[in-house]
Amino acid sequence: MTYRIEKDFLGEKQVPSHAYYGIQTMRAIENFPITGVTIHVELITALAEVKRAAAQANMDTHMLPKKIGEALVQAAEEVSSGKLLEEFIVDSIQGGAGTSINMNMNEVLANRSLELLGEEKGSYFHCNPNNHVNMSQSTNDVIPTAIKIAAYRLSEQLIEALTSLQSAFARKEIEFDDVIKMGRTHLQDAVPIRMGQEFGAYARVLMRDIQRIKQAMRGLLIVNMGATAVGTGLNAKPEYVERVMFHLKSAVGIPVEISEHLVDGTQNMDAYTELSASLKVCAVNLSKICNDIRMMASGPRAGLGELKLPPRQPGSSIMPGKVNPVMPEVVNQVAFQVIGNDHTICLACEAGQFELNVMGPVLAFNLLQSLKILRNAASVFERFAIEGLEADRERCKNYVEQSFGIVTALNPHLGYEVAAQLVKEAVRTGLTLKELILERGLLTTEEIEEILNPIQMTTPGIAGDRLLRPAD
Amino acid sequence: MTYRIEKDFLGEKQVPSHAYYGIQTMRAIENFPITGVTIHVELITALAEVKRAAAQANMDTHMLPKKIGEALVQAAEEVSSGKLLEEFIVDSIQGGAGTSINMNMNEVLANRSLELLGEEKGSYFHCNPNNHVNMSQSTNDVIPTAIKIAAYRLSEQLIEALTSLQSAFARKEIEFDDVIKMGRTHLQDAVPIRMGQEFGAYARVLMRDIQRIKQAMRGLLIVNMGATAVGTGLNAKPEYVERVMFHLKSAVGIPVEISEHLVDGTQNMDAYTELSASLKVCAVNLSKICNDIRMMASGPRAGLGELKLPPRQPGSSIMPGKVNPVMPEVVNQVAFQVIGNDHTICLACEAGQFELNVMGPVLAFNLLQSLKILRNAASVFERFAIEGLEADRERCKNYVEQSFGIVTALNPHLGYEVAAQLVKEAVRTGLTLKELILERGLLTTEEIEEILNPIQMTTPGIAGDRLLRPAD
Amino acid sequence: MTYRIEKDFLGEKQVPSHAYYGIQTMRAIENFPITGVTIHVELITALAEVKRAAAQANMDTHMLPKKIGEALVQAAEEVSSGKLLEEFIVDSIQGGAGTSINMNMNEVLANRSLELLGEEKGSYFHCNPNNHVNMSQSTNDVIPTAIKIAAYRLSEQLIEALTSLQSAFARKEIEFDDVIKMGRTHLQDAVPIRMGQEFGAYARVLMRDIQRIKQAMRGLLIVNMGATAVGTGLNAKPEYVERVMFHLKSAVGIPVEISEHLVDGTQNMDAYTELSASLKVCAVNLSKICNDIRMMASGPRAGLGELKLPPRQPGSSIMPGKVNPVMPEVVNQVAFQVIGNDHTICLACEAGQFELNVMGPVLAFNLLQSLKILRNAASVFERFAIEGLEADRERCKNYVEQSFGIVTALNPHLGYEVAAQLVKEAVRTGLTLKELILERGLLTTEEIEEILNPIQMTTPGIAGDRLLRPAD
Amino acid sequence: MTYRIEKDFLGEKQVPSHAYYGIQTMRAIENFPITGVTIHVELITALAEVKRAAAQANMDTHMLPKKIGEALVQAAEEVSSGKLLEEFIVDSIQGGAGTSINMNMNEVLANRSLELLGEEKGSYFHCNPNNHVNMSQSTNDVIPTAIKIAAYRLSEQLIEALTSLQSAFARKEIEFDDVIKMGRTHLQDAVPIRMGQEFGAYARVLMRDIQRIKQAMRGLLIVNMGATAVGTGLNAKPEYVERVMFHLKSAVGIPVEISEHLVDGTQNMDAYTELSASLKVCAVNLSKICNDIRMMASGPRAGLGELKLPPRQPGSSIMPGKVNPVMPEVVNQVAFQVIGNDHTICLACEAGQFELNVMGPVLAFNLLQSLKILRNAASVFERFAIEGLEADRERCKNYVEQSFGIVTALNPHLGYEVAAQLVKEAVRTGLTLKELILERGLLTTEEIEEILNPIQMTTPGIAGDRLLRPAD
Repeated sequence: MTYRIEKDFLGEKQVPSHAYYGIQTMRAIENFPITGVTIHVELITALAEVKRAAAQANMDTHMLPKKIGEALVQAAEEVSSGKLLEEFIVDSIQGGAGTSINMNMNEVLANRSLELLGEEKGSYFHCNPNNHVNMSQSTNDVIPTAIKIAAYRLSEQLIEALTSLQSAFARKEIEFDDVIKMGRTHLQDAVPIRMGQEFGAYARVLMRDIQRIKQAMRGLLIVNMGATAVGTGLNAKPEYVERVMFHLKSAVGIPVEISEHLVDGTQNMDAYTELSASLKVCAVNLSKICNDIRMMASGPRAGLGELKLPPRQPGSSIMPGKVNPVMPEVVNQVAFQVIGNDHTICLACEAGQFELNVMGPVLAFNLLQSLKILRNAASVFERFAIEGLEADRERCKNYVEQSFGIVTALNPHLGYEVAAQLVKEAVRTGLTLKELILERGLLTTEEIEEILNPIQMTTPGIAGDRLLRPAD
Repeated sequence: MTYRIEKDFLGEKQVPSHAYYGIQTMRAIENFPITGVTIHVELITALAEVKRAAAQANMDTHMLPKKIGEALVQAAEEVSSGKLLEEFIVDSIQGGAGTSINMNMNEVLANRSLELLGEEKGSYFHCNPNNHVNMSQSTNDVIPTAIKIAAYRLSEQLIEALTSLQSAFARKEIEFDDVIKMGRTHLQDAVPIRMGQEFGAYARVLMRDIQRIKQAMRGLLIVNMGATAVGTGLNAKPEYVERVMFHLKSAVGIPVEISEHLVDGTQNMDAYTELSASLKVCAVNLSKICNDIRMMASGPRAGLGELKLPPRQPGSSIMPGKVNPVMPEVVNQVAFQVIGNDHTICLACEAGQFELNVMGPVLAFNLLQSLKILRNAASVFERFAIEGLEADRERCKNYVEQSFGIVTALNPHLGYEVAAQLVKEAVRTGLTLKELILERGLLTTEEIEEILNPIQMTTPGIAGDRLLRPAD
Repeated sequence: MTYRIEKDFLGEKQVPSHAYYGIQTMRAIENFPITGVTIHVELITALAEVKRAAAQANMDTHMLPKKIGEALVQAAEEVSSGKLLEEFIVDSIQGGAGTSINMNMNEVLANRSLELLGEEKGSYFHCNPNNHVNMSQSTNDVIPTAIKIAAYRLSEQLIEALTSLQSAFARKEIEFDDVIKMGRTHLQDAVPIRMGQEFGAYARVLMRDIQRIKQAMRGLLIVNMGATAVGTGLNAKPEYVERVMFHLKSAVGIPVEISEHLVDGTQNMDAYTELSASLKVCAVNLSKICNDIRMMASGPRAGLGELKLPPRQPGSSIMPGKVNPVMPEVVNQVAFQVIGNDHTICLACEAGQFELNVMGPVLAFNLLQSLKILRNAASVFERFAIEGLEADRERCKNYVEQSFGIVTALNPHLGYEVAAQLVKEAVRTGLTLKELILERGLLTTEEIEEILNPIQMTTPGIAGDRLLRPAD
Repeated sequence: MTYRIEKDFLGEKQVPSHAYYGIQTMRAIENFPITGVTIHVELITALAEVKRAAAQANMDTHMLPKKIGEALVQAAEEVSSGKLLEEFIVDSIQGGAGTSINMNMNEVLANRSLELLGEEKGSYFHCNPNNHVNMSQSTNDVIPTAIKIAAYRLSEQLIEALTSLQSAFARKEIEFDDVIKMGRTHLQDAVPIRMGQEFGAYARVLMRDIQRIKQAMRGLLIVNMGATAVGTGLNAKPEYVERVMFHLKSAVGIPVEISEHLVDGTQNMDAYTELSASLKVCAVNLSKICNDIRMMASGPRAGLGELKLPPRQPGSSIMPGKVNPVMPEVVNQVAFQVIGNDHTICLACEAGQFELNVMGPVLAFNLLQSLKILRNAASVFERFAIEGLEADRERCKNYVEQSFGIVTALNPHLGYEVAAQLVKEAVRTGLTLKELILERGLLTTEEIEEILNPIQMTTPGIAGDRLLRPAD
């Protein structure tokens, strides 16, 4: 391999001749061989768009020579459209608040611009990573801005996936509306419910999750371009800020706004914790739903067997014919990952000090991962588990008929103690509730049938209401 | 001690004659000797208000005899006004989704009503904990409703405390507006900033925390009265639901609303996780702020010494004259508790199954504790730490004068590399940046003074802007 | 109320005349109205024992006048034996690394000693909280030492409770050894297993939990008495250290040792995080076990119904006769609390800075709570849930007979694909596996019976091994 | 692209002709497009070694024809030596307890064996993924076994990196032994300490971390080969178990042992939670150490400036000459990741049900990541931060001389109150403690010098001990 020599204020370093990245990227590679996982591509493309907007704003304010600026704009467009991605080699977890991500980008754009300008890579006199590419910027404004843009876009995709999943639940609410089954509390037989009501509840909690995430997304729209190092805006002209926001907004197609208080906008990462918290709440809910579905689909013979999941893959390398609920299982696992990531995000946010939170890289790594995996999981869960989900109506009905939970409907007519006694007696004797009631002459056959009607039990009100005498 | 005998469908038990609670409370005491901490008083009083509203609604709908109902209303009012609190003896962590809390209340109200009606305690024929006090209700609707009311009220108090703290920060923003100090990123000298800007950032992030908590409080307003066991509303007349909401709303003075989908309202605890998440985000921010303040107040001699906290108590049992930053320290600890509690809350929510989340007691225990301690901490932090906080202007100024961070302002004029070289040279030689610049003839004295003006550096723009030649 | 005036270097304050605590306790009460929960009593009594040992050591080394020292010893013994506990009024969460706990103790012991010496409360000239009671000590050595002693004792009690629970599981391993049931993986029918094997697994994981906790307890034995403020031992004579350890060891009856490196012993709280982590691992395991038991006990009719828990209390305020698995439920909740507490403990430990971790109070609050509630939960879980637990042998057997899981035993004889085909066919036709095999002439009746023997399936090996032809 | 058709009991699927993986891998790819990150390579190679041992054991017990077995052994050796890694394409987070990882391996080994045997890929009659490759095995035994082997090896590497880091701290303990500096508690000046003592404490806590991790590693050695589906050992001959352990032990070079209770060994994942907990405790400690070092290295002018970290990379894209503590920063971030991962691991473990924990994939993903990043971070932290770390002796000394913390040494001579008064007076007047003491005639110059000797203050004992009069 051939090399070129680059230098910075700490000394010189060999850089592979073919590389668009430069000395600072090389230093980062040496310093941070941590996860082996490079930066989320969504962050790279968003950062390229930020760089493009900055170059345009610097031209608009006559800070950046047109020739250099135009080359930079083209280079940035190439990266944001997916080119040169292999040049972004710094590790996802790195020291320095994202300086190495920013410099990796600055170097790649500088060298690609040099190429476009007909100059040698590394001849930074003509286009310099710090002076030209990073002009009017700091890691501390461009990196949070790019993270927010990337997170916003992934959030939009997540919302889309969750909305689609919510519709699937809502369709099941209708489809399963007439499936009478035993409601369960404490995993113990309670009173009858319709399966459609359960799926209606799933749809509703997911709707609130969507609203929570949308609410949290609003914080992502507030960026701190022009804040530069600590939020005071040193070295960034006010006109630059105005222009960069104009270009950025039109480029990314997201209604980003400038923070009203750039010191606040630079110091605080609460937009990330807020978004992550909303993802966590959603993960908790999805995990609960998947637990329910896995229990209802348990069996086929030694389980509840109320639901049938579409078979997706042989479930065992040893047990022939076994099919497992792999789709809800993967959602559970994604939920656990999102909850753990939220924890990391909180720790990293709490570690902010003074004007800056230097834990940006681990924040971005976890936040963008959570968004992606939740989106992906919601999507396959809908397609491969909910869409083809079927209820075993017969089995559901049998449970209701066998259960004593319906005794609750007798409370208003016989009182809690008598009803409790009947259950005990039924268990002891093997007789049905009806038989016992008749035997004791507590109610007539007609009255019993009116009261112990499972369908009616799933709608509000007192079964056999008209049989009751008003209290006063 | 003398006893009366009570019984339920599991058998008999001795209850102290004087006790207003009964057999089921006794069972709970035996089963759950866990934390030694009883139920939050705010939850007890809220539950009493719920019971009062239920009794009224049951009278309105002619389900409950007036005589019994009126005794119940009076008994419930007594409890909600703080009487008989010593009768609520069940443990904060208990099995059973709050059944024991509910039955403790049902028994106390029944026995107090019996007393008012001139009957013996335990003579439940005249007023029964299940049939009369719990009429049209289930643990699964009254307990979540009472938790939400208690949480809402504590949230209001928290909002008040945080708003007051936020104002205190805002006052400091003004008071410290002219305190020029070194901004710090990575704990390394960055560029100058005004201390007022830092406190302005604190005020702003806290403002967003307040908004987040307010947003989350909206979920607390949706209750599930009339859901009864599983949300289907079995044994609760629609008119009852209407009346109970009417009475409840007017009693508690909070705009509670009935859930549109009572199965959802019974199954899902996302209102708790959402609120707790907003508290956690706030805790993370407060902890960061306290870390900053403790570092700025470090010293008096071997620390940064930029801030002086009001002395609150001798700081050491061994080191004379030592005063510690105990107020921010206690806020840090409260923040850690709130974050840990949030974790418990998420685990408990994820453990919900089918129609009910049976982990209600541990949810309530942690949620209400988080609200209380955050409220208390914010309040004393404001009064005892922020109100009397003073800046050491002299020390702040000295840091700025000694530091090289101001070199950043030279970037637009000399370029990043030359500026970096000057810093290195200054460190090596002990010369000031100004001396070096003059020695090398890079700028004139006037130009230097125009550019390296610390005050100007703390406002957006390029210091010495007019000296720059437009790029094109 | 009447008051006495006390003063410290920050000024004067009124103290109720009757109080044994003094001005610094008063300041703490004013500064930290946080949780409303006072210090764990185990910590108070352990601290009194530490104080007693210190007074003796100070007499031994001729630092403390005998008269004062003997009064102090008596006062300390009174407190460690449970007297004057109502004088310990500072809040569990407080700023200052435990200074307020230490000073509360120093003041109570000083005033009780004064009383014993025939002096007025507050006349600290004769016996001073700092000079005499706290002689040779610092909050930074006595508080961690007392926390460790309290934690060690609670750990011993926890070990006892867990060992007893483990024995109960082991008894069930024997009792349920002949209960053949369907094993489940992914909540799907797998292959037969004996219920005794499941309880044997519970016993074994709990045994490892006990070992882990015991291992972690070893860190509690290393204390830092004599470290004083920062571990350098300033103001504590080496002979004092020797004597205080002698007295402490004999008083508390625990083999405490002095840290080999007192700076390490003062700076690091890893003994707490290690212990808490071991509690968390145990909590995770107990929660899993309780989840299993609750599922196996689900029903009575619409659940698995393999286990019957002893009924402990009526399970519902509305559903007559309903009994819930409240004992495993409370263990789940305790597990969630312990896991959340562990989180708080980690956050607090990570927040240590330089020579000291000032988050001691919140650490002690959570660590001691975790130990207590886990001990309590294990104990009632054993007595009220495991001891009387019964298996429904009939139901377990039925599941095995109905299930296709036994097909796995055919793999070595027919191959995975053929076996899978048989299952599919059995589901389609309603025929049994045996019928299908015979119909297709795959095996003889005798061979089938040899291979598909459920009992044999629960022991290692290939059913019908002798029917196989060696591969080579 | 050309395809071959494969089928399983759910139907047919096209598989690329060139692929060594087969239909079940294809299904997994379709079902689980979650993280985009494939399985840790250490897990793949360990699994290949497990497969090799199983093939050998199956030959030894005459279950597997020699010809097929030998091909399988060769194929497995190729994979374990790093070949065909690109064929392992299933996602790190996937449903199914690792079935897809296992089947991906089974298919690759089957097809590579077929190739070696001169057969077509996909002609599974000659060598079948389930019947031959997976013979005597289940996902539920081979996957946990492979995870444990991979985790053990990474743990060994981690131990090596931590031990090396610990030695580096120990070297600094010696190098900085004579650096007298102010000890700090509560970030407030306390009493003098030697920097070597601080680094000695770091070395010691890390030594305990190493012991904790080593202790936890012991759990990884217990594997469940032969457990098959649920731990009962169905379809695995006892001789097979003996032989597979023999081959496995010799192949992997780790003293793995068979679990004494295979149902326990299959059901419980506590070896993972225990290891992860030990990593978390270590992460908490490392994070605290890095926080200390970053604070001590803060400056260069407006910070503490007690330490100088080796410069590793330019610290800012905008601030020339700025160098940030990127190495401790990256360790902090890694610590946060490890703590968050531990959370995910606990959630996943708690979700185990009955005979199996199906959350294996997310467990392995997080556990192996934690091990790797902690190893990597410890290694670069040592080389790039600790090795070249320097103390600023002059600055440290100045702090001691300016500070009042030394007043503590006066306690035994003047009493706490008088000493506290002196500090207050010194602050008020600007006089030194010495001047004030002399002015008031409290001690002579010689006495003062004997008592206020900073060096002596950092060793145990009372400075000026001989000046004290014995108490009795």
